[in-house]
Amino acid sequence: MTARTAGAALDELVAQLRNELGDSGVLTGADVTARSCDPFLDVPPAAPALLRPRTTAEVSRIMQLCHAANVPVVLHGGRTGVAGGAHATAAELVISLERMNRIVEVDPIGGTMTVEAGLAIETVQQEAEKHGLFYPIDLGSKGSATVGGTIATNAGGNRVIRWGMTRQNVLGLEAVLADGTVLDLQNRFLKNNTGYDLKQLFIGSEGTLGIVCKAVLRLVAKPQTQKVALVSLDSYNSVLDLLGRARALQQLSAFEVMWQDYYAIVAGDPARRVLDPQAQFFVLIEVMGNDEAADEAAFSGLLERAFEDGLLTDAVLATSGKQADDLWRVREGSEILVREMGPFISFDISVDIRRADEFVGKVRAALAQTFGFYRSVAFGHLGDSNIHIGVHLGPDTRERGHAIECCVYGVLKGFGGALTAEHGIGTMKREFLPHHISANALTTMKHVRQALDPVRLLNRNVLFES
Amino acid sequence: MTARTAGAALDELVAQLRNELGDSGVLTGADVTARSCDPFLDVPPAAPALLRPRTTAEVSRIMQLCHAANVPVVLHGGRTGVAGGAHATAAELVISLERMNRIVEVDPIGGTMTVEAGLAIETVQQEAEKHGLFYPIDLGSKGSATVGGTIATNAGGNRVIRWGMTRQNVLGLEAVLADGTVLDLQNRFLKNNTGYDLKQLFIGSEGTLGIVCKAVLRLVAKPQTQKVALVSLDSYNSVLDLLGRARALQQLSAFEVMWQDYYAIVAGDPARRVLDPQAQFFVLIEVMGNDEAADEAAFSGLLERAFEDGLLTDAVLATSGKQADDLWRVREGSEILVREMGPFISFDISVDIRRADEFVGKVRAALAQTFGFYRSVAFGHLGDSNIHIGVHLGPDTRERGHAIECCVYGVLKGFGGALTAEHGIGTMKREFLPHHISANALTTMKHVRQALDPVRLLNRNVLFES
Repeated sequence: MTARTAGAALDELVAQLRNELGDSGVLTGADVTARSCDPFLDVPPAAPALLRPRTTAEVSRIMQLCHAANVPVVLHGGRTGVAGGAHATAAELVISLERMNRIVEVDPIGGTMTVEAGLAIETVQQEAEKHGLFYPIDLGSKGSATVGGTIATNAGGNRVIRWGMTRQNVLGLEAVLADGTVLDLQNRFLKNNTGYDLKQLFIGSEGTLGIVCKAVLRLVAKPQTQKVALVSLDSYNSVLDLLGRARALQQLSAFEVMWQDYYAIVAGDPARRVLDPQAQFFVLIEVMGNDEAADEAAFSGLLERAFEDGLLTDAVLATSGKQADDLWRVREGSEILVREMGPFISFDISVDIRRADEFVGKVRAALAQTFGFYRSVAFGHLGDSNIHIGVHLGPDTRERGHAIECCVYGVLKGFGGALTAEHGIGTMKREFLPHHISANALTTMKHVRQALDPVRLLNRNVLFES
Repeated sequence: MTARTAGAALDELVAQLRNELGDSGVLTGADVTARSCDPFLDVPPAAPALLRPRTTAEVSRIMQLCHAANVPVVLHGGRTGVAGGAHATAAELVISLERMNRIVEVDPIGGTMTVEAGLAIETVQQEAEKHGLFYPIDLGSKGSATVGGTIATNAGGNRVIRWGMTRQNVLGLEAVLADGTVLDLQNRFLKNNTGYDLKQLFIGSEGTLGIVCKAVLRLVAKPQTQKVALVSLDSYNSVLDLLGRARALQQLSAFEVMWQDYYAIVAGDPARRVLDPQAQFFVLIEVMGNDEAADEAAFSGLLERAFEDGLLTDAVLATSGKQADDLWRVREGSEILVREMGPFISFDISVDIRRADEFVGKVRAALAQTFGFYRSVAFGHLGDSNIHIGVHLGPDTRERGHAIECCVYGVLKGFGGALTAEHGIGTMKREFLPHHISANALTTMKHVRQALDPVRLLNRNVLFES
């Protein structure tokens, strides 16, 4: 097929889709290119059309037509992922689930909420609170990130140490396969072993195996208390010791570590300079519980004993919800990072907790050896093994982004770490995937993709080549 | 191929395997038939040989040879599953992982234990305790059930409400595919989104997609306190009210309900007659925490308020570990059930918690209408939606076991319940599976099985027909 006839076929498909979805269901031209596919690069979709189905049946119909016309699609949730998973070429159509954002049902006794996939995480959290319940997935982008996007990426965030990743908080879902087949997997039970748990296929597979249209989320009792402290420590052994002690508290809901290079930058904002930025490590600890006196006693007991035992050099405890938010803003200083460190490459790896500081040190040494001058920061969800490293792309490194990636991932490989902990592979880490999983695993992934989407209509450029 | 040449080919394969595994690695004759494939029916394996590999490499070699010879295998863990998953025909070989029961590594900082799949759950629990840690999967058969068997069946048990099913407690694994391919998926991190999470395929797929040889288990901090109470209630609404209150305690680790018909039988043992067996419902509540005073206050506060509000008719609190065990023995009275109710058919379903009592009532009504006389008991992990029902196969129903199954599952279908919550489909519920999942889901399950085991060498008769 020539480019011209391919273009004509695409035009015909878009006309057909307009018939099915109505005018408001198909955007073209500037309505498409005014959008961005990611929060930092602001790349607009190159797709000739963006489809906005309102129901699972419409999603199914879209895929039937795309399957018949052999036209691939790219799926859009909140478009704030950072792995390039939402980038779309001119040969692809975009499906956005933005009009599928209804709350279908809340079951306060079973502790479930059934929602459409386009709903924002923050709205889920707010709806749960109305019922005295809690949806534990919490991440910086909760206002934009959707249920479908967080399922596709198996999003993690700040409270994984207590409540797990998105995978642990999804009981069921409804998905549309590449040929339009609708799979009803809307399980609502904690226990259900009736055949393969097919929903697992769609969680964390970055939209390559099916389009998640609805989800049954698990809700937990809403914690009644929140205690937050920011502490500083002078050795990594002290950080590990503190982590072991904190883990013994069932109320523990976050254990976030910042290396000195990260905190030094964030502390440039006087409101966040709550501790002397000379210390080597800074840890934000949070507990959430339901008994004010007991939780207060457990939390202050932890910190007092850590002080007595010489683990901490300093500490600030939040004494109000406002102060707790302020301490969280120390950890979530990404807008300062963007300003002070941008442009930068961000890494999202998991590594053996015992060796995380050694890993960070080796990364710094490798960057120094390769580039001479460099700037980097390290922080992360240490309780989950998950470290984020940001490396500034300065005048002498801007052209060398790829070399920086090779450098960091080279060190990672020696540590047996994970290429991505929670951001996903998307299109940006695709070339590195084969170096961080076994050849047999990659082959098996291809077999699974082949079984579910043999023509590769769904997020074709995501994860790996065929 | 005639039966005679098939037999000769099988003999040749067994001889080859003896070469590979040594004499102690291949059992035949009475050494095979002296075993049982299940705890209640005592069906011996009809397989001509039982293979006992010592390493993943030996498992891989077995599957290479079986693949080349097109001989199917049946996998044996602890052989105390109750769905017939371990039954073996004369055309199949058995692979038992009983000699692969080593503890490979414990990482107390990361909170992981890497083990071979033949290790018993109780041994995992004991090893975890040595490190001040806790493996939360706990079920009556923990002394026999193996890590591999519990992964294959995604076992649940008593504490799912707090720590989830086996799926939530497995971080990584190593599996051998039907053609002998070794998949190293030994992830150790809470967060790892490096491509598809292939390990999910092997959890809960009842040994039909691969042979789990090793697992990386997640350990949590060992709870320091345990409080157990047995209470009686006179209405199901009170049970639901109590569940809602109990769920608000983060320490809650079990919420087990017994209907009157169950407790009446168990209370035939004077040691277990701790409450008047005339009440309608009996609930065992357990909390586990790490602060004696706070946990005691939270637990007694829950029970006192429930009394004041008229939810409870009576209650017994354990005041020692011994008494806590005794109360658990009320709930785990399976040997009394076997004696008083045997032979019986056991059901393991999940149903909307709000309607569980209505479901039990409708089952009783349907049994009465169909059979006139019947005896049944109901109990289960209500906090997880999971109800077990046992129906006695009396003189007039012994031949009618299948009719009883059709009767109960017919009622279940009307409730949108799950055919099996934690026991699995095995061979015994295979005919019912298509009635309790959608046709599209069944087709997709077949596509997945086809992708991973196209010749169906693994547990061929388990789950569904090709």
